[in-house]
Amino acid sequence: MAREAREAPARCVEQLRSNADLVREAGRQLRALAPPFAATLARGSSDQAAAFAKFLFETHGGMPTLSHAPSTGSLYHATSPNFRGVPLIAISQSGRSPDLLAAADDARAKGAVIVALVNDASSPLAERAQIFVPVQAGPETSVAATKSFICTLVASLHLAAEWSQDVGLLGALGDVGAVLEAAAGADWTAAVEPLRDASEMLVLGRGPTLPIAGEAALKLKETCNLHAEAFSSAEVAHGPMTLVGPGDPVLALAPLDIARTGLRERLEDFAARGATVIAAGSADDVAPAAIVLPMRTDVHPALAAIAQIQSFYGLANALSLARGYDPDRPPHLNKVTRTL
Amino acid sequence: MAREAREAPARCVEQLRSNADLVREAGRQLRALAPPFAATLARGSSDQAAAFAKFLFETHGGMPTLSHAPSTGSLYHATSPNFRGVPLIAISQSGRSPDLLAAADDARAKGAVIVALVNDASSPLAERAQIFVPVQAGPETSVAATKSFICTLVASLHLAAEWSQDVGLLGALGDVGAVLEAAAGADWTAAVEPLRDASEMLVLGRGPTLPIAGEAALKLKETCNLHAEAFSSAEVAHGPMTLVGPGDPVLALAPLDIARTGLRERLEDFAARGATVIAAGSADDVAPAAIVLPMRTDVHPALAAIAQIQSFYGLANALSLARGYDPDRPPHLNKVTRTL
Repeated sequence: MAREAREAPARCVEQLRSNADLVREAGRQLRALAPPFAATLARGSSDQAAAFAKFLFETHGGMPTLSHAPSTGSLYHATSPNFRGVPLIAISQSGRSPDLLAAADDARAKGAVIVALVNDASSPLAERAQIFVPVQAGPETSVAATKSFICTLVASLHLAAEWSQDVGLLGALGDVGAVLEAAAGADWTAAVEPLRDASEMLVLGRGPTLPIAGEAALKLKETCNLHAEAFSSAEVAHGPMTLVGPGDPVLALAPLDIARTGLRERLEDFAARGATVIAAGSADDVAPAAIVLPMRTDVHPALAAIAQIQSFYGLANALSLARGYDPDRPPHLNKVTRTL
Repeated sequence: MAREAREAPARCVEQLRSNADLVREAGRQLRALAPPFAATLARGSSDQAAAFAKFLFETHGGMPTLSHAPSTGSLYHATSPNFRGVPLIAISQSGRSPDLLAAADDARAKGAVIVALVNDASSPLAERAQIFVPVQAGPETSVAATKSFICTLVASLHLAAEWSQDVGLLGALGDVGAVLEAAAGADWTAAVEPLRDASEMLVLGRGPTLPIAGEAALKLKETCNLHAEAFSSAEVAHGPMTLVGPGDPVLALAPLDIARTGLRERLEDFAARGATVIAAGSADDVAPAAIVLPMRTDVHPALAAIAQIQSFYGLANALSLARGYDPDRPPHLNKVTRTL
């Protein structure tokens, strides 16, 4: 897991280079299509990447984006005729899950334009796509996806940038290699000790980092047997805060954009009730944290979020080992999940 | 909490009666509007009700529906011009959360049609709505919402039925009173003992019951200090299953419709690894469960899901007391959450 995660920066640079023409053309096609909305289709970690894409499409591209539940197509066959001319961004590492394939077929039959972000270029999902964006992570042997997740986030950033022609996003593409290299080298293991004996915890994010928090929580479950749940730092006040008491760990992956609003006060609340707050973000926002994890804060907020998960994987690997697990062989997990 | 939850069946019957003309007219207006998609806007329990509405709009009304994050409007002001003529279904108990109000204003400025499902008819959110559907739960004094949640689900069912003119949904409206009365009387306290000492657990649902599982998990957090997390019974195989070992409780709120597919096999997996499976659903689907909770299975699947949360609230109240808490005064919670 650690070795594969470490490959992500180089893989992302290569992906951006080799996909440049293809994604520029995809952006042109999507602008010409001018759909009323977009949709995503994914499960698991890929669904966190889909939430990241939704955030970028909506906030930078002005494109309302919905999450199309696989079952809506695969079981209910309820995909609306309104999907005609709508890009359905299907995201999958393997491109082989039966429910995603069935839902993609259902949407295509209604006139949707299938845009596939898939790692396995020879997979049935890639073959079904009208627009195929190869994720180019290379073979992934660890069951818990890491580099394929990071590469998918970068592919989403690339697609969002070319689709929206947003100057900030386009500019961020050039920084991907250096920022992810720095993030891969950032040492987040100061968080191992306070998490070593935890059985449950919250992971907070908002805006661009909410899907990152979701992926971090999933990895803590899978590889560390730690019941971590992700929440928006705004949403957490609607109930879940009640779970946190003295000594309980809270991990905050702070955004660098306007979604920072209110975060410092929220972290002060957690610290005041005795929680062990661990955070990565701007110094001012994360001041209430007992442990501040290193990150570059001079980068585009969307890229900073991708950098956070790059650094986090090093922590997850170390924590898994510290808790007595093998991060490469988590129990009860399969590479391709077969559900309909 | 228990007393207020017990009021829900009568409140729902009264709501359906007094809203009949208003919601019929709302359905007519929405059909005439013929939008390309719909959107929801909500937080906390209300966001679970929004997910239930999305499910009904998509599977019974053929209307693609997206969750509009409050921050997209309130912080990013990124609501798309594509929201022109799109119904934004804003759901709130109080109708006073600043982020919802700001996001609703932002969407309205882009031409969205604000449809408010709100309990407090004199609230600013109700006043902003072009279509206002009063939830009619009556004053709710317990901090943890129960009857207002159930009444909101019924209002969503009502709106979905009148909008879609789906014969099954329209027929289900007539059964609401009897089904919820039966559900309020169903004894789910057999689940108290296995959950008394749990510190974390999974709650499973799918299709119409996934949002119900989400609300149940939220209430277990808020009122029982039990870290319950909701998952789709399909999604859970993508990682979170790894958390469950011998003796760990799993609560499955089984759907009665096609989303039942594969549930029995999934519950067999959990039982095989020694989990204590507690379930409510069709006898055949929930056969692997150690504890089967009583429910009527001869009703419309959407209404059955509402009945499940009605019965669940009795369990949550009893469990909260058994764990030494006061279900009416959970720590760290406020009735109106103020976030921007």
